[in-house]
Amino acid sequence: MLEEKNYHLQCTGSAMETVERHSAAEDITLFGSCFCPFVQRVWVALEYLGIPYKYYEVDPYKKPADLLEVSPKGLVPGLKLHKYTPPRALNESTVILEYIEDLAASTTRRSLLPTDPYARALVRLQCDHIGRSVVPAWYRFLQAQEQAAQIEAGKDFRTSIENPVALFERAEREIMQGGASGVGEQRALGAGLGLWLENGDLNLSDVMVGPWIFRASNVLKHYRGFEFALGDKFGAWINRLFNHPDFKSTCSTEAVYIDSYERYASNRPNTSQVANAINSGKPLP
Amino acid sequence: MLEEKNYHLQCTGSAMETVERHSAAEDITLFGSCFCPFVQRVWVALEYLGIPYKYYEVDPYKKPADLLEVSPKGLVPGLKLHKYTPPRALNESTVILEYIEDLAASTTRRSLLPTDPYARALVRLQCDHIGRSVVPAWYRFLQAQEQAAQIEAGKDFRTSIENPVALFERAEREIMQGGASGVGEQRALGAGLGLWLENGDLNLSDVMVGPWIFRASNVLKHYRGFEFALGDKFGAWINRLFNHPDFKSTCSTEAVYIDSYERYASNRPNTSQVANAINSGKPLP
Repeated sequence: MLEEKNYHLQCTGSAMETVERHSAAEDITLFGSCFCPFVQRVWVALEYLGIPYKYYEVDPYKKPADLLEVSPKGLVPGLKLHKYTPPRALNESTVILEYIEDLAASTTRRSLLPTDPYARALVRLQCDHIGRSVVPAWYRFLQAQEQAAQIEAGKDFRTSIENPVALFERAEREIMQGGASGVGEQRALGAGLGLWLENGDLNLSDVMVGPWIFRASNVLKHYRGFEFALGDKFGAWINRLFNHPDFKSTCSTEAVYIDSYERYASNRPNTSQVANAINSGKPLP
Repeated sequence: MLEEKNYHLQCTGSAMETVERHSAAEDITLFGSCFCPFVQRVWVALEYLGIPYKYYEVDPYKKPADLLEVSPKGLVPGLKLHKYTPPRALNESTVILEYIEDLAASTTRRSLLPTDPYARALVRLQCDHIGRSVVPAWYRFLQAQEQAAQIEAGKDFRTSIENPVALFERAEREIMQGGASGVGEQRALGAGLGLWLENGDLNLSDVMVGPWIFRASNVLKHYRGFEFALGDKFGAWINRLFNHPDFKSTCSTEAVYIDSYERYASNRPNTSQVANAINSGKPLP
């Protein structure tokens, strides 16, 4: 049995500094929880897109009334949009990401997607696979209790990660091997590769998968002895991701994650809606 | 035991007329199967957006080599994009929908999404729920064999449908009750309601859910005695959807669906990748 630990209610480290810089009222309030990867997706994107927001920490297991107002299932992240009277709300990390991408298009002109429709589609193909395979496989691995189940789930998680890598490689091949007909088109498609390219910048698929890659490097390592072993190129990508200023600025120190995920690692009853969905073989809420 | 039936390999009725109108080579080839709801999503959207395409029928259970080339898992729909040398490919219905939406933006100027970012987000919120809940619940209902399991799965399917209705109503309330600050904003948000509004037009969530609503009205009715009972407003929406010219033009006659889904209704071993995923409690492929 693992020693029972309490989940954290406050960011630490770089993430705490970012919270402090975003504690004043703005048109958008982000309802977040310090350890939640779905929140981190939106948080990184807000930072990258340069959209003003206030960070507001909530306890997602207590589901306070103001959270339920913006997110009917009481799940973080949620957005409260104060520019409307009465204020409007939005939930679901992937929907919020598209929303702030749309907002940025007409305000800050920053974007997490390339402009070329096919390059955008390649990024979305990765995002689709991340939501459908990588994320559920991560939870199945952490929640598996018997050794045999852990080995099986660990393999599944590794396989789920290999697929985005294959997609990266497919995109790279199509760009480099004459698929792209000129330098302009190469650049447009290259934007689709995000941080996979040595001189690339953050893109939507980096943001979609980054929080679980990060939590693999601390939570899965701590509780499941997990190590990435997918080659130098993959390692270089992880390195660029973890050191990207907009990713780094939303990361707390390790204890926040290790402690907060002990309940998942022990698969305690009613750990969360996500954990229950994984245990019952239902889609994530 | 149900009488064993063979799945169809050819569209009939209005869908067959549409196939005939789209049998000449174009920049885009749609790899489709006559009974497949994921294909119908893309097909309706191509029709609505006015994007030229060739319809190409494939047997998804035989997985011919040319299908595997455009869709690595051998799943329909797939797109082959002939404007590139060598041709490029795309799969996953939701990714293809975003791709053709992006294409239309710079060519036909048609769109399945409203322009206002918040209205777009409300549509995406519905789409997210459809993919996550409505679609898996539909298959669980059809594949359930024991009576008790069928009753339970039938309830789940009904509940999954009530949620988009609640989202429709939420959007309508926000538009009508002062949330929208003027006629312009009312119209912008109204576009998000799709065919839910009496004078609305097809939108992305109609396209995302329509194929399963249609197959509920014939396949679930035939094999599970299912009837919608969600009120007049829901009935009027279904009516507008089924009679929308771009939806209707992709519908075959009833036998195509009844016959092709017998294998699901009997839950025959290895019916499909989708059926296997449902049986094993894994996310849909």
